[in-house]
Order: sequence, then structure tokens, then C-alpha cells
Amino acid sequence: MNAADLAALLHADLHGDGTLPVRRPCHPAEARAPDDVAVAMDGTLLALLADSAAKVAVVAADAVARVPAGAVGALVAVGRPRLAMAGLTGAFAPPPPVPVGVHPSAVIEDGVTLGEGVAIGPFVHVGAGAEIGAGTVVCSHVTIGAGVRIGPHGLIHAGARIGSGSTLGAHVILHHNASIAADGFSFVTPEKGSVESAKETGRVDATNTGLVRIHSLAAVTLGDYVEVGACACLDRGTLSDTRIGDHTKIDDLVLIGHNVRVGAHCMLCGQVGIAGSAVIGDRVVLAGRVGVADHVTIGDDAVVAAGSGVGTSLKGRAVYAGTPAVERERAFETYMLTQRLKGLFRDVRALKAAVRPGRHADDGANGAG
Amino acid sequence: MNAADLAALLHADLHGDGTLPVRRPCHPAEARAPDDVAVAMDGTLLALLADSAAKVAVVAADAVARVPAGAVGALVAVGRPRLAMAGLTGAFAPPPPVPVGVHPSAVIEDGVTLGEGVAIGPFVHVGAGAEIGAGTVVCSHVTIGAGVRIGPHGLIHAGARIGSGSTLGAHVILHHNASIAADGFSFVTPEKGSVESAKETGRVDATNTGLVRIHSLAAVTLGDYVEVGACACLDRGTLSDTRIGDHTKIDDLVLIGHNVRVGAHCMLCGQVGIAGSAVIGDRVVLAGRVGVADHVTIGDDAVVAAGSGVGTSLKGRAVYAGTPAVERERAFETYMLTQRLKGLFRDVRALKAAVRPGRHADDGANGAG
Amino acid sequence: MNAADLAALLHADLHGDGTLPVRRPCHPAEARAPDDVAVAMDGTLLALLADSAAKVAVVAADAVARVPAGAVGALVAVGRPRLAMAGLTGAFAPPPPVPVGVHPSAVIEDGVTLGEGVAIGPFVHVGAGAEIGAGTVVCSHVTIGAGVRIGPHGLIHAGARIGSGSTLGAHVILHHNASIAADGFSFVTPEKGSVESAKETGRVDATNTGLVRIHSLAAVTLGDYVEVGACACLDRGTLSDTRIGDHTKIDDLVLIGHNVRVGAHCMLCGQVGIAGSAVIGDRVVLAGRVGVADHVTIGDDAVVAAGSGVGTSLKGRAVYAGTPAVERERAFETYMLTQRLKGLFRDVRALKAAVRPGRHADDGANGAG
Repeated sequence: MNAADLAALLHADLHGDGTLPVRRPCHPAEARAPDDVAVAMDGTLLALLADSAAKVAVVAADAVARVPAGAVGALVAVGRPRLAMAGLTGAFAPPPPVPVGVHPSAVIEDGVTLGEGVAIGPFVHVGAGAEIGAGTVVCSHVTIGAGVRIGPHGLIHAGARIGSGSTLGAHVILHHNASIAADGFSFVTPEKGSVESAKETGRVDATNTGLVRIHSLAAVTLGDYVEVGACACLDRGTLSDTRIGDHTKIDDLVLIGHNVRVGAHCMLCGQVGIAGSAVIGDRVVLAGRVGVADHVTIGDDAVVAAGSGVGTSLKGRAVYAGTPAVERERAFETYMLTQRLKGLFRDVRALKAAVRPGRHADDGANGAG
Repeated sequence: MNAADLAALLHADLHGDGTLPVRRPCHPAEARAPDDVAVAMDGTLLALLADSAAKVAVVAADAVARVPAGAVGALVAVGRPRLAMAGLTGAFAPPPPVPVGVHPSAVIEDGVTLGEGVAIGPFVHVGAGAEIGAGTVVCSHVTIGAGVRIGPHGLIHAGARIGSGSTLGAHVILHHNASIAADGFSFVTPEKGSVESAKETGRVDATNTGLVRIHSLAAVTLGDYVEVGACACLDRGTLSDTRIGDHTKIDDLVLIGHNVRVGAHCMLCGQVGIAGSAVIGDRVVLAGRVGVADHVTIGDDAVVAAGSGVGTSLKGRAVYAGTPAVERERAFETYMLTQRLKGLFRDVRALKAAVRPGRHADDGANGAG
Repeated sequence: MNAADLAALLHADLHGDGTLPVRRPCHPAEARAPDDVAVAMDGTLLALLADSAAKVAVVAADAVARVPAGAVGALVAVGRPRLAMAGLTGAFAPPPPVPVGVHPSAVIEDGVTLGEGVAIGPFVHVGAGAEIGAGTVVCSHVTIGAGVRIGPHGLIHAGARIGSGSTLGAHVILHHNASIAADGFSFVTPEKGSVESAKETGRVDATNTGLVRIHSLAAVTLGDYVEVGACACLDRGTLSDTRIGDHTKIDDLVLIGHNVRVGAHCMLCGQVGIAGSAVIGDRVVLAGRVGVADHVTIGDDAVVAAGSGVGTSLKGRAVYAGTPAVERERAFETYMLTQRLKGLFRDVRALKAAVRPGRHADDGANGAG
């Protein structure tokens, strides 16, 4: 590939010598060879181009004039830098880490169907009757349960566990040690227990006389192009599968409880937790460590700010924040008011002194702190 | 099994033809055959029975009259639906996923004792001197450390790690990639460090001149019927085992620090974190993502609401919420008051204007927002 | 080892018979033999020494006078108990759990370099061209990607995954199922999406028309003496490695996003989450479950209290708390003021009645609750 090819790939403008070869994108200060491509779409990196070993650079179109004169031989000038980063990193992404074929150490049970070009790494266990689509790559130490169906062109990283009966669409990616279809966390007490009591009365009027397990008979279904992060846990459904829609991306250490339904094109960021039977719409964004209570619904295109706790259902196409999560504007207003409390206490103390001059500010607990 | 058998199993009333066969419980809309059992204990599903392929349905006893006429051939009418769900799913739970015996790929070190009917899957490593009780099932890719003792009738799912010297009771279930007995997170600085300074003075008057490791010499002990979720982490004790009482259920991604003691019949929901040396009583419920500080105590039958942060010890048999966690009623009251702050600021502004008519609302930071 | 040796090792004073043998440190109530060492540095345990089977005890120097007379044959009296615990547990820590050499079940790809005394356990997969330093111990079921470099004297526990191209320094410890160098969670929409809209206007004026993946071309670099907890996830960098400085300790279930830089001698406690491209200084302490937003900076020696949410950059050498995290003193003040709101509402209600006697407390939403 040369600079002109790269510009074409990124739908970008080329300035300079398009014949210069490009081999590897990198930070301007970490370029080691002329065919490294210095990525300086962040304006603060432009100054580094002068001393970079790279001869080709990718910059934002509106920053071309600020590139030090003569710093590089060719500039690839892009209009939407983050999108260009997707194209650029995709073009140079490494090939699948496992060769086509089945490693001799793998254990493949009876009745397994492997599509064309499947790659199975060392110490993989594929359960009876499983189907793996064409071109899917299964890295070492993966467990694929009995009857699991995986679509074509998937990539299952080391240590991922896929429980029996689960269905994965095409182009699914599972990262290190992800857990698909462990049993749900679902128990009941023979008599009314402490949690039911707390929900009804706010008090603990009953005790848990025993915890009886509700088994998870269903599995997990992931749509096409779903990605699941490292050590993320998506639990089985009780009678119907827990479902994740097409193109939804799930970060590391996310927990998705039993029976949850997540729509398409959602982003569930790191350490998000969604309790059982919640229903999440399409294109919902849950920022880092958002918690969602069981059985609530979140509408399409909702955005929930990091760390929020969603305790009740939320309408779509709005931004939410706080615990309990409310519309961002209201959460922000409440927060700002709490930051002005010191002055408010002072004002009330002064008012009390003015209104009842015989009583002093030291007469009670509400004097200014 | 037929409808009459199922009613007997669930201690339920039978309406209709008890001889109808039942093979698989499912959502009414997902029934595919007459011997599927439509589960419609949630009243909103009753209307679906008319079009369901199932000939037998399980419904709540108080909903029998609302079942569409002629919808099914037999009704199993239950008194406590969630408890019935436990019985129903238990009756149809799949058999253990590993055949009895030791898979030829497993590595069993010297001095291991295997009980009758133990099942060991592919790529399992059992350390020297370990004991595994009768009927216990160990799925693929599990690591069992040296000297570990596992009771009878356990189920250890793929990728679980059990550190050396740990003890698991009878009927213990570990889910995918659970970590039992990793080392505790315990360090000390040779001189007083920033955390000690912060605790004493609220300021950082000291720096961390080095972090020296406190090793974890003890292991983890789990009682009977304990269940540990996927990617949950229960760390070793320093000198005495970290201990979990009988029948306690631990959800995915829960962290239990070194030296923690958890009582019996507790429920620790998803992403809960308990810091080192905390002591949790019996039948305590920590809802999703509750955090508990090190060395605090929580009394029997306490219920802590989702997302709360327990910073100090809590008495038993009460409901707590918030960060820091306080009695739910007080937490709720404070929250409701913060939601009325806007009006309070307005009132104070009006009072200031009324009391000192010469000064206007724009005279300070505390006018209504 | 005898009591005198132990006192010397811990730089402690010896009282009594230094020739008494010591074999195993334990809780005073759990001692089973005369050569057990009762550890009673916590003053509440001193009374247990009278009935302990141990003949040697380790106590705090200022507690020697409170040891029951004749309880033990020798006292090791230490000045800084937690530091002594580090020395004591280090002296009795178990040997590495894997014998030197390569287990016959392990799969070692081409071009791997193993240092002297390396120990490789069962079912380990070492990718092409990896280098493992002298004395490093790799437990069962570990995945080491192609081109990974691990320094000497490391300890990689069962199920840890190290993605290709990563670099680990000397004396690194990875715990069960830790994930090093999974891909970062990084996506972009072709057109402006809901998150960009929310950041700019606080509203959702745009929808996510598609999620395009930004690939992670770089890896992870861990300094010397870094420790990573069970199921912790450290993601790859996009163009430059995600980096963790020397001696930094990372607890279980911590998430470190792509491109993050963490300094040296930091402590990142359980369930901490650091979003992409954040920069953490040296000797920073993030207590349990602290969240850090993307791209923020935290200065050297900062201490952030448990559960806090860091939304903006923080200066060093101070204590922070709350969400959003502010200086601890301010967070505490605001919290205390919110606890006094009930009285404030009451005061304002009384003032309104006094100032406008014709209007009563029941005239609006802001009467005292």
C-alpha cells in the first residue's frame, strides 16, 4: 500500500507524494522507519511530525496548514478523524491468530459441523452437535457447549465459554474469558422472604427460610456483529433465551442477567450491569458502570451517563444521569443546588435572626455550618 | 410425565385432562408441540394461550378464570408462582454435561481421590492430593489446585479455578471462569503511606515509599449448597480461610476480599464487592453492585438496596440504601428533600426580598436558580 | 526456623526462649501444634494466647505487657504490625505450584525462548516467538500470545490470557483468568451519533446509524513487580501500548481501558474502572470501585475514596470523594448539609409563616415534610 492507496481507502485528500509506501500506523513519536505512518489527527501531535521517522502522516483536514513545513513527504487529510481511525486500524489489523484447521490437541465431540475455513486452536473443546460457521476462528482454551451454533466469520478469543444451546450470529467476536450462558441468578424462598417484605413495606418482616433454585432452561442468542468484552457475563434465560440484537457492542466485565433483551446497535460500556428481565431498546448507550434494575425498560436511543443507576423505566431519545437516573438536566440541576447549600443555610440563619431578633443563630441544629 | 404428574410435583391443582403428556416448559408463544407446557404464571401471558401449540399450561391459581375458554386441555394452577417455577425448571433441568469417568485428556496429579460417579471433562487439571466427592461433575478446562477438597454432588463449570488448599462443601456449583482462592489484595508501605495519612487527617501528608506484599497463606472454604457466579472472585485469607456459609448464593462478577466471612443463606447479587475482613451475617441480601468497606459488619437478615455503599457496620433485620448506606427510610427522605431544593431556594429568595426589601434577589449566589 | 530467627527476620524484639521452633503462622485459635506461631498483632486476639496450642506468638510491641502471663514460651514483638505481616507471610509463602520444565501437554509454538528454570504447567499455550524470562512460573491453562515477552521471576496463574505482542516486566504476577490485551472498546458512527450529540447539547439530536470498529493495533506493557488480580481486564492500546508502571498493584475485576497510562507504585483496588486514554500518576490510590472517565488525568499521590466517580482531572496529593469526585472535605461538607435538610425545610416553613402570617404552611410544595 502507498500513501495514495491509503487516502483512497479513507476517502481522504492526499497532499504530496502518493507513491510513498505505508506499512504500519503509529504515534508520531514511535515511528521507526520511513514507511511507518504517523497518525497525528489529534492536533497536539502535529508538532511531533517534524522529528518523526515517518514519511507519511494522517492528519485532520482542517489541520493541514499547521503541519510543520517539510515534515513529511505525504499528508493524508481526513474529514472525520475517529472514523478515519476505524478505517486505518482496520486496514492494518493483524490476521486471525489461529491457522485454518483443527489443532491436534482440540477435542471435538460427536456430530459437530465445521464450516469451510474454520480454525480451531489448541485445547479447544467443542460439544456434541455444535455447528461452527465458515471462516470462524476459535482460539485456544475455548469451551463450546453441546448444540451451540456459531455463525460464519466469528472470532472467539482464548478462554471464552459458550454454554450449551446458545446461538451466535455472523461476525460475532468474544473476548478473553467471556461467559456466554452461565445459569441465571434466580432463587425463591418457599415462604415470603426478606426481599419481598422490603419491597412491600420497606421493612424486613420476614426472613429467608431457604433459597430454592430456579433453573435456567434456555440459553443466549447473540445477533450478527455482536461483540462481547473480556470477562463479560451474559446469563441464560429461564424459558426463553437472553437476547442481544445485531451490531450491539458489549465491553469488558459487563453483566447481563437472565431473560434480558437488548436491542440492536447498542453500546454497553465497561462494568455495566443489567438485572434480570430488563428490556433495552435499539441504539441505547449505557456509559461505564451503569446499573439497570430488573424488569425495567429503556427506550430507543436513550443515553445514560456513567455510573448512573436506572431504577425505573426510561423513555427513549433522552439523556439520563444519577441514581436513581433522571433526565440529565434535572440531575444536573439538583447537583448544582446541593453545591449551593452552604450559602442557603447561611441565608436561613440570617433570616431567622432578622425575623426573630430575640432568637440567635445558635438556637438549633440548622445554623450555618 | 403427564399433566397430573406435574400438578402433583408442584403441589398444584389440576383442571382438565391429567393424562396429557408434558415434555418441555416454555413461553406460550414459543410452544411448538402439543406436549410443550405453556408457562403463563404472569397474567399478561394468559391471552397467548389461545394461540399456543401447547395443550397444557401452568397458571396462577387466582388466574384460572381468566384463561381463554378451550385454550388448552389441562391447566396446572399454582399458588406461589415463583416457587412453582423452581419446581418446574428443576424437573426439566438438563442432565450433567460430562459423562462419568475421567476424560483421557485430563491431567490428574499424584494422590488424587475421586469419589464414585465423578465426571471429569477434557483439559481438566487436578492437583496433587485433591479429593473430589461422589457424583461431582467437573467440566472442561477447570483447574483444581493441590490439596483441594470438593464435596459430593458438586458441579464445576468450564474454566473455574480453585486455588490450592480450598474446601468446597456438598452440592456446590461454580460457574464459568469463577476464581476461588486467588491471593488477597493486601499491601503495606514500610513507612506510613498516603492511605493511612488520609484516614488520620483527611489529607495526603505522606507518600507511598514502596508497596510490600502481604502473602495469603490460607485458602477459601465454601459451605454446602453454595453457588458462585461466572467470573466471581473469592480471594484467599491471610492466615485463616475466607469463609462462605451454607446455602449462600453469589452472582456473577462478585468480588469477595481476603478474610471475609459470609454467613448462611445469603444472596450476593451481581457485581457486589466486599472488601477484606468484612463480616456478613446470615440471610443477608446485598442487591446488585452493593459495595462493602473492609472490616465492617452487617447483621443477620439485613437487606441492602442496589448500588449502595456500606461504609460502616449495619445492624440486622433492616433495609438500607444509599452511599453511605443508611436506613432506607432516611435515605429516601433525604433524596425526596433534595428533589424539592429548587422550590426551597425560591422560597428563601422571596423571604430575603420580603424581610429586607432594599436588597434584591440578584445580590448573591443564593437566588433561585 | 526458630523464634530468634523469626524475630531477626522481622526486625523485632524477642522475649522468652528464642530456640523454640516455628513452622507455620496462624490465628491463635487455629494453632494445632507447639511449633505453630500464633499471630496476635491485633490486640483483641491477645486473650486467646492463653489457650492456644502455639508456643510462640507475634504481637505488637506496645502490647507485650498485655500478654497473659505464661501464655507462650516466646514473644516476637513488632513495631509496625502490618509490615511485620508482610515479612511473616513472605517467609512462609508456599513454593511455586509448578515444577521446573515444560509439562508434556503444553503446546509451545515455533521460535519460543524459555529462560533458565522456567516452569510451564499443563495445557499452557505459548504462541510463536514468545520469550519467557528465567524462573518464571506459568500455571495450567494459561494462554501466552505470539511475540509476548515476559520478564524473569514472574508468576502467571491458571487461566490468565496474555494477548499477542504484550510485554511484562520482571516479577510480574497475574492471577486467575486475568485478561491482558483484549481489544479496546472503541467504536465510531459514520455520522455524528447520540453520544456526541449528548456531549454537545445535553440532548439526543442524532441517532447511531452504525457502529464501526476501531481496531487495537498495539498491546499492553506492564512494568516490573506489577500484580494483576483475578478476572481483571487490561485492554490493548490503539496505536501505542496501554502502560502500567513498575510496582503498581491491580486488584480483581479491575478494568483498564485502551490507551490508559498508569504510573508506578499505584494501588487500584477491586472493581475499579478506568476508561480509555486516562492518565494516572505515580503512587495514586484508587479505592474500591472508583470509576475514572476517559481522557482525564489524576496527579501523583492522589487518593480517591471508594465508590467515587472521577469525571474531570484531579490534582495530585489530595483526597477526593463522591460523584463527581471533589476534594474530600467539600464532598463531606455537602453530604453533611444534605443530612440537615429536614430541619432547613422546617425553618423555612416557619419563616414563611412568620413573614406572611396570612399564608399557611399548607400553601405549597415546600412545607416541611
